[in-house]
Amino acid sequence: MSRFRKALTLFDDYYDMMSDRVRMEAYRRAIRRAVRPGDVVCDLGAGLGILSFLALQAGASKVYAIEKMDSVNLARSVAALNGFADRIVFINENSKDVELPERVDVLVSETLGSFALEENTLDFTVDARRRFLKEGGRMVPESVRLFLVPVEDAEVYGKMTFWRDVCGVDFTPARRELTRRLMIVDIAEENFLAAPLLYDAIDLRTVDCVSVEKRLTFTFERRGEVHGLAGWFDTVLTDDITIDTSPSSPPTHWRQAFFPIEEPVVVVRGDYMEVDFRVGPKTDRSDDTLISYDYFCSQLSREYRERNVGRNDPCPCGSGLKFKKCCGR
Amino acid sequence: MSRFRKALTLFDDYYDMMSDRVRMEAYRRAIRRAVRPGDVVCDLGAGLGILSFLALQAGASKVYAIEKMDSVNLARSVAALNGFADRIVFINENSKDVELPERVDVLVSETLGSFALEENTLDFTVDARRRFLKEGGRMVPESVRLFLVPVEDAEVYGKMTFWRDVCGVDFTPARRELTRRLMIVDIAEENFLAAPLLYDAIDLRTVDCVSVEKRLTFTFERRGEVHGLAGWFDTVLTDDITIDTSPSSPPTHWRQAFFPIEEPVVVVRGDYMEVDFRVGPKTDRSDDTLISYDYFCSQLSREYRERNVGRNDPCPCGSGLKFKKCCGR
Repeated sequence: MSRFRKALTLFDDYYDMMSDRVRMEAYRRAIRRAVRPGDVVCDLGAGLGILSFLALQAGASKVYAIEKMDSVNLARSVAALNGFADRIVFINENSKDVELPERVDVLVSETLGSFALEENTLDFTVDARRRFLKEGGRMVPESVRLFLVPVEDAEVYGKMTFWRDVCGVDFTPARRELTRRLMIVDIAEENFLAAPLLYDAIDLRTVDCVSVEKRLTFTFERRGEVHGLAGWFDTVLTDDITIDTSPSSPPTHWRQAFFPIEEPVVVVRGDYMEVDFRVGPKTDRSDDTLISYDYFCSQLSREYRERNVGRNDPCPCGSGLKFKKCCGR
Repeated sequence: MSRFRKALTLFDDYYDMMSDRVRMEAYRRAIRRAVRPGDVVCDLGAGLGILSFLALQAGASKVYAIEKMDSVNLARSVAALNGFADRIVFINENSKDVELPERVDVLVSETLGSFALEENTLDFTVDARRRFLKEGGRMVPESVRLFLVPVEDAEVYGKMTFWRDVCGVDFTPARRELTRRLMIVDIAEENFLAAPLLYDAIDLRTVDCVSVEKRLTFTFERRGEVHGLAGWFDTVLTDDITIDTSPSSPPTHWRQAFFPIEEPVVVVRGDYMEVDFRVGPKTDRSDDTLISYDYFCSQLSREYRERNVGRNDPCPCGSGLKFKKCCGR
């Protein structure tokens, strides 16, 4: 059992993040814009320190780099090698336990998961903004928006169906467990079954709540099998500098989030899906967020679904279009 | 920074392992062979419990499933659902802290990493065999062999060179850090620069040491750039039932291990590489193993390397062959 991969993956994750040109170019530009010579900066969740180093390149007089993981040791060596050591203070703690000796001009962070919030981002950001940032200080990023859409994707969903029978053992509890996590996948627009909806728009400079709970109603635009919800985010780093992780934008290391449903539902055009979706902190010091969702499909009548409608008949949904141009395409 | 992936990856790892047909089929057959009706079995590092369930299917009267991670909760639900609950005892602890009420007939485990030993396999296995297994009891697996070969693989090595300059910052310490870990990759035989050598052959039924330290000498068979060492293992599960993870065998979820060297070395046919390679426990309760290696290339004379030899001249290595048929191919 390759538990060892955990450790590897962490380093691989840094590679994925730091070699993501969309991410790095946007952050480089945003930090150059937001950080003014002489500024004091806090880098929340500094990882290997790259955002701190960008802030120093942009002229920051001092950076407090807060990182609770031991990647901070490597970041320290890199800082020394690059002549940053006298302007950067590494703090190897959970940010909630940190007291800074001064307030900062700019708070930078990249604690965005594939559905933006799943690293308990709101909880940590709100706390850091309140305690570390000067009145009127700047934040990178400034805001995030989250999107959801029901999708058909039998291939991605294969990881769910796998657990029905493993060597003659029924692993149904694993399927249930998977609906409490997100998968990280590449979703294509052609897998959408409805128009994506804005789940939430969060101004990180003013937000006070640390969780989101909303109901969305999707109208299916075609016949298909719902396997789950795809989710992604876009973010304003500063001014007009943004990152968009939607399936129609250039790919990033974030890819997209996928929230599987336990049993697929066959839907036709005109069916509705109501989704109650909650994202909130697991504990106030954990990197993890609890994500949970319930859903309900209100479906068109059985007569409508089962009736043998000819391709050139008027569509029974009442659109006035021929069936072949309308439902069930 | 997608730290959240750690949690995800763990579940993905179980999927990778349990959907690996080479692995599962070999274990299924081996457990059916090794476990006799009425046997008491210990599953060391049970994960989601699949090897325990296979032992119960094979007729075990009782299985002690030892797993320190919380995957054991899911395994418990699966056991209950499948009617195994009364014959399986889950023990959610580090095996070194466990005392069993009886000795077992069979010790099964799959704590094999891509270079077999990197989950501190020897340390845990030797301890469990001594304290849990009856005199003359059976073990699955029985033995492992480890292989190493120097390889040229610029693509895999790209993850090393990346850290030279990240947005104008020299991340050399990251390169050094990477030489202390293994990467998990797919190596092709055409990337070999020499013949693979057996690094060690370990009989798990009798081995007493918990670390390996050996020197290997490779002779390069062609001109190329050494980027690192590829490693893999094969294992006898029981009798003639084996798993082989070499690049020339059908692929498994283990893929191959890659141990990068910090700076590539250009070699020609006839050059030698001496490698001191050590694999040993990090601490006696950690899943991690310290892997370290030093290497030294003894190279042919400068005259030989730089001399302008015609393609039809006799090769300066003294083989008697034409240069085009010999060195530097």
